Amino acid sequence: MLKGIPSILPPELMKLLMEMGHGDELLIGDGNYPKFGQPAENVIRMDGHGIPEILDAVMQLIPLDPYVDNPTMLMAVLPDDPYVPTIWDDYRKIVNKYEAKGTREIQLEKPEFYERGTHAYAAIATSETALYANIILRKGVVVPK
Amino acid sequence: MLKGIPSILPPELMKLLMEMGHGDELLIGDGNYPKFGQPAENVIRMDGHGIPEILDAVMQLIPLDPYVDNPTMLMAVLPDDPYVPTIWDDYRKIVNKYEAKGTREIQLEKPEFYERGTHAYAAIATSETALYANIILRKGVVVPK
Amino acid sequence: MLKGIPSILPPELMKLLMEMGHGDELLIGDGNYPKFGQPAENVIRMDGHGIPEILDAVMQLIPLDPYVDNPTMLMAVLPDDPYVPTIWDDYRKIVNKYEAKGTREIQLEKPEFYERGTHAYAAIATSETALYANIILRKGVVVPK
Amino acid sequence: MLKGIPSILPPELMKLLMEMGHGDELLIGDGNYPKFGQPAENVIRMDGHGIPEILDAVMQLIPLDPYVDNPTMLMAVLPDDPYVPTIWDDYRKIVNKYEAKGTREIQLEKPEFYERGTHAYAAIATSETALYANIILRKGVVVPK
Amino acid sequence: MLKGIPSILPPELMKLLMEMGHGDELLIGDGNYPKFGQPAENVIRMDGHGIPEILDAVMQLIPLDPYVDNPTMLMAVLPDDPYVPTIWDDYRKIVNKYEAKGTREIQLEKPEFYERGTHAYAAIATSETALYANIILRKGVVVPK
Amino acid sequence: MLKGIPSILPPELMKLLMEMGHGDELLIGDGNYPKFGQPAENVIRMDGHGIPEILDAVMQLIPLDPYVDNPTMLMAVLPDDPYVPTIWDDYRKIVNKYEAKGTREIQLEKPEFYERGTHAYAAIATSETALYANIILRKGVVVPK
Amino acid sequence: MLKGIPSILPPELMKLLMEMGHGDELLIGDGNYPKFGQPAENVIRMDGHGIPEILDAVMQLIPLDPYVDNPTMLMAVLPDDPYVPTIWDDYRKIVNKYEAKGTREIQLEKPEFYERGTHAYAAIATSETALYANIILRKGVVVPK
Amino acid sequence: MLKGIPSILPPELMKLLMEMGHGDELLIGDGNYPKFGQPAENVIRMDGHGIPEILDAVMQLIPLDPYVDNPTMLMAVLPDDPYVPTIWDDYRKIVNKYEAKGTREIQLEKPEFYERGTHAYAAIATSETALYANIILRKGVVVPK
Amino acid sequence: MLKGIPSILPPELMKLLMEMGHGDELLIGDGNYPKFGQPAENVIRMDGHGIPEILDAVMQLIPLDPYVDNPTMLMAVLPDDPYVPTIWDDYRKIVNKYEAKGTREIQLEKPEFYERGTHAYAAIATSETALYANIILRKGVVVPK
Amino acid sequence: MLKGIPSILPPELMKLLMEMGHGDELLIGDGNYPKFGQPAENVIRMDGHGIPEILDAVMQLIPLDPYVDNPTMLMAVLPDDPYVPTIWDDYRKIVNKYEAKGTREIQLEKPEFYERGTHAYAAIATSETALYANIILRKGVVVPK
Repeated sequence: MLKGIPSILPPELMKLLMEMGHGDELLIGDGNYPKFGQPAENVIRMDGHGIPEILDAVMQLIPLDPYVDNPTMLMAVLPDDPYVPTIWDDYRKIVNKYEAKGTREIQLEKPEFYERGTHAYAAIATSETALYANIILRKGVVVPK
Repeated sequence: MLKGIPSILPPELMKLLMEMGHGDELLIGDGNYPKFGQPAENVIRMDGHGIPEILDAVMQLIPLDPYVDNPTMLMAVLPDDPYVPTIWDDYRKIVNKYEAKGTREIQLEKPEFYERGTHAYAAIATSETALYANIILRKGVVVPK
Repeated sequence: MLKGIPSILPPELMKLLMEMGHGDELLIGDGNYPKFGQPAENVIRMDGHGIPEILDAVMQLIPLDPYVDNPTMLMAVLPDDPYVPTIWDDYRKIVNKYEAKGTREIQLEKPEFYERGTHAYAAIATSETALYANIILRKGVVVPK
Repeated sequence: MLKGIPSILPPELMKLLMEMGHGDELLIGDGNYPKFGQPAENVIRMDGHGIPEILDAVMQLIPLDPYVDNPTMLMAVLPDDPYVPTIWDDYRKIVNKYEAKGTREIQLEKPEFYERGTHAYAAIATSETALYANIILRKGVVVPK
Repeated sequence: MLKGIPSILPPELMKLLMEMGHGDELLIGDGNYPKFGQPAENVIRMDGHGIPEILDAVMQLIPLDPYVDNPTMLMAVLPDDPYVPTIWDDYRKIVNKYEAKGTREIQLEKPEFYERGTHAYAAIATSETALYANIILRKGVVVPK
Repeated sequence: MLKGIPSILPPELMKLLMEMGHGDELLIGDGNYPKFGQPAENVIRMDGHGIPEILDAVMQLIPLDPYVDNPTMLMAVLPDDPYVPTIWDDYRKIVNKYEAKGTREIQLEKPEFYERGTHAYAAIATSETALYANIILRKGVVVPK
Repeated sequence: MLKGIPSILPPELMKLLMEMGHGDELLIGDGNYPKFGQPAENVIRMDGHGIPEILDAVMQLIPLDPYVDNPTMLMAVLPDDPYVPTIWDDYRKIVNKYEAKGTREIQLEKPEFYERGTHAYAAIATSETALYANIILRKGVVVPK
Repeated sequence: MLKGIPSILPPELMKLLMEMGHGDELLIGDGNYPKFGQPAENVIRMDGHGIPEILDAVMQLIPLDPYVDNPTMLMAVLPDDPYVPTIWDDYRKIVNKYEAKGTREIQLEKPEFYERGTHAYAAIATSETALYANIILRKGVVVPK
Repeated sequence: MLKGIPSILPPELMKLLMEMGHGDELLIGDGNYPKFGQPAENVIRMDGHGIPEILDAVMQLIPLDPYVDNPTMLMAVLPDDPYVPTIWDDYRKIVNKYEAKGTREIQLEKPEFYERGTHAYAAIATSETALYANIILRKGVVVPK
Repeated sequence: MLKGIPSILPPELMKLLMEMGHGDELLIGDGNYPKFGQPAENVIRMDGHGIPEILDAVMQLIPLDPYVDNPTMLMAVLPDDPYVPTIWDDYRKIVNKYEAKGTREIQLEKPEFYERGTHAYAAIATSETALYANIILRKGVVVPK
């Protein structure tokens, strides 16, 4: 643990977040997210945690990409599924705390989301049980003080 | 995730728990537990979790050693420290759910505890913030049905 | 060994089953299953065991994918082969114990089966001697209690 | 699988048995055998199998050391334990099939057995549930025809 | 060395032969066989040995594939080369000892042979000096007694 | 780079600082610090940097051990060396910014310092050119907010 | 550190610079340079340093390729961006000290620059904060005295 | 060092030369030969040596391929370059000592040479300073006495 | 294979022989030589070969140490064993071909021989079946011509 | 190759020289130097080179330790050996070019020299044929300009 760093973040994840540059993406998958949708390397397990608490910790450290329209990607609800993913509202509230422009999200169809996830620089495997909770974040530019 | 397995358990930890035999020990350290007190290998990070919720999941899977007097080891409070580690009561309640004979604990002096911890087969690094919360469990005999 | 976990399961397989997500597939091959039909990594050897006893242990832990028509894949009997794979009935009985909807199987032609097997997340190499005994399972969604 | 080779033997174990020379030892441990009593390398898991079926396969391939008095080592029953390890009779019958002079066993006290086990060239981790079932075999001289 | 196993076989080769399944192929190359014609992994060196003595040992352990017309592949003599590879007769005699149907060989043109060799599951590098002595074997189905 | 994290810190060093627990030590050596005085692993190179700027970044993240008298160790000036290490004053000023009790330093004789350095959990190799600039920090307890 | 070698250069970078031949390229990226634009291997971190001081050290050791028109590549300013990268003037001054013909630079569009960067033999990750500061150098022929 | 083996040859190179078969190629590059023209593996550094002395040692051990017209490949002088590579005469004299038919060389255009070099089984990195000194040798058939 | 190099020598062994210096020792063990008597690394398998043919090839390349009285070590016949190891005469004849002073052997008691073997720089595992055939060679000084 | 760096130095050696600090030692052994006298890691082969040319290149880069009486160690001539190692004069001339105080050498008895060599941070294996040519250098303090 370190002063001022959320204790929920594993050291290896911290290292990956620091290595990511402008435009590199981070995938946070739910508890049933398939291996075939993950990058071949840099998968960090955070079993027992839901996504919101992780998202909050990550957003304290990384800015979203201001140069693209949609730096946040969500998995679109299937056409015939009446489910309403209320967890997205939690995501929006969390991101709003750190980003003036908010999530500026886009919804990707399931196969497209999986395909995009495999190109992420890093991924976090969680135990989130909410449906359609998977999220991809595109890192912006960090400006040291 | 698997049916009936606590989702808090990382796959790698599950593998290590299965590999442990009768008399092998598991160390669960708090958020400030030093590296010099851990085994050289098989350290699983569970950042963001307290020890009680991990202990509860582990105790569902492993029995304590019935052949020794003290299959549970705690770190003794320093002589001049008035602190009362109430988390031990939580441990006792959790263990009692799974073990008829309870924790049958012993308190080890700090240096002895660190020394013992380095010989554990596996260790879990947590973010537990309670003081004197470190615990070592000695695995018993599993009898398949 | 652990309480409540079938002792037939190797720790490394347990780890892989936990890592698998929704839609990831598991290949269980017979004693003569070729290497060219297996995934490049994550092949667990279970020499000396037939497939039914392994299938029973695996099905206690993973649900089948409810979102596809055929979460179970078998290798189709060759057109001119009069052999009747009675072991399939064993498979159906075993799966029925754990899945209300049963195997909902499909038969894949031999080359297609091999091709599919190479994309499985994990494979088990057994000593099963029955013909046409190879099977692929597609994992569903685990919902923690 | 190969012609004439017991299908229960994993390829990696076969390799280790071939590498062993005169006087090298093989440990076969039960389902609760501790990691601290095993060699640091060359541990082969054979989950789901009892020791007798493994012993039978191994004895088809290796001779016992004829130059020592006790090429077979068993773990002695604790002084105050009335348990009678009938599995030893199974061992004796199996060994007698392959060795004219039989097991010529010696019983080692528990700590001595663990200590000796750590020096074995290879070890097999089984799911044997019988008590006092652990066994160490000392390989003899193979004379090619 | 083991009882009943030809002492010429290296432990690592034995392991590979056991891992091979129905349809997997084994390449045995002569002393000048190029690296570019070998598989990327699983190349076993048997320097100082000719191919016939190795072939004899291998054929004691693996059956040829009965489901294809040509489970044995030889490298065809170049069109304008008057050389007669008499070593092929040795191969035929050796194989006939173990296979009722014999080699049922096919000759592959040099480039095709090299191409096929790179897909073998394993290869043996020998010191054979006879010309056109390279051979590929396709493993059949092993039926345990 | 991350928001709020000094950009001078390499990701791998950040990971190591997070892994360190209470009582683990960090060695920061000058540009001529010998390999024989460093730990066998976890050596991070920060060529081109002096120690003060690194110390400042590190002290933003780790507390010093409040349970020992001397959580900071310096290398004592040789008895017959008139050199006055003014860089120590820089160290004291930097540490005072983050620690109410200051460095509470002790000076170790050269051989003792080297010996202690080999037991550090991590080391930083710098290009510091000031004499007697080597420093060892003993990490304290981090209390999450 | 070595006599006459800039102390800012990490040993591993020195090794890579020596391995590079005529026509091999070196990428020096700013603090937000993405991982997807870097080569898969040979990425050296030089956190806390700006590019000019690194460029100066590197140019002392490597000549630019005299056989191509543009041995230096810069990332072109986006069409609608009024930003003027004054750091390029620093680069030109530095290179002029070591190369009679100067940088002879070309500007590559952002996507082309990233694509080219992935083919570099080595890359340096810096903490440079100036915009459009990324640079690729193409090594020339070294003629020993 | 060994009796009768040129002491200039590194043990690792000797191993690679022995592994090469008929038709495998060896690249010997000059001191500025680029990494992008070398094979991904098996690059042996022989810093401080010119190519002729290495060529002489290598030619004592490997025959050139008698089945192709041009077992030796040189890098063609650029069309507008008046340079005459006199080192080629040295190569011819050296090869003539060991090969009755001489080098039977062909000149490859620069890009073609680099492309071919990447497919060599092994490469030697030298400090040769002569221009157009790079050479590729194609190994022939070794006939043991 | 290479010109003038015995084809029986594996490339890896050749590399090890070249790496050995004055006073380094080579162990050649029979088919039942135990692993506990071998060095931890650098064990080359030469299954299917007897020791004399290997010894002849090795002696073509390495001189024996002229500075010690006994550069050749044999395993002494047990006191009560009437066996006469006639293979030693073969060894003496082979060595005499290459060494003017012959083997100048010494016999080591079994335990001493095993102990010494573990310190050898390299070992060869053969299929030699003669008794008391193990041999250790101490390399001398190679003088290049 | 790099500008101003002796081309005889391998990149890996350059890296090791840069990593060495004050008091770390470098061993340069002759062509028959034994492996048991070398460090376990960091051995660089420079086959085909004598020691003087290497020493000259190394001394351009590293200073000798001014804080000890004997920063250079040579292997003492055996008591009854009339040989006069004239190569030492070459060493003294080379060192004098770079060190005002010269070699300030000490002679170590053979066993002591070997023992010391194993503790060197790095070693160079040469093809030097002169007797008593082995040398150990103790690195001093580098002061950047």
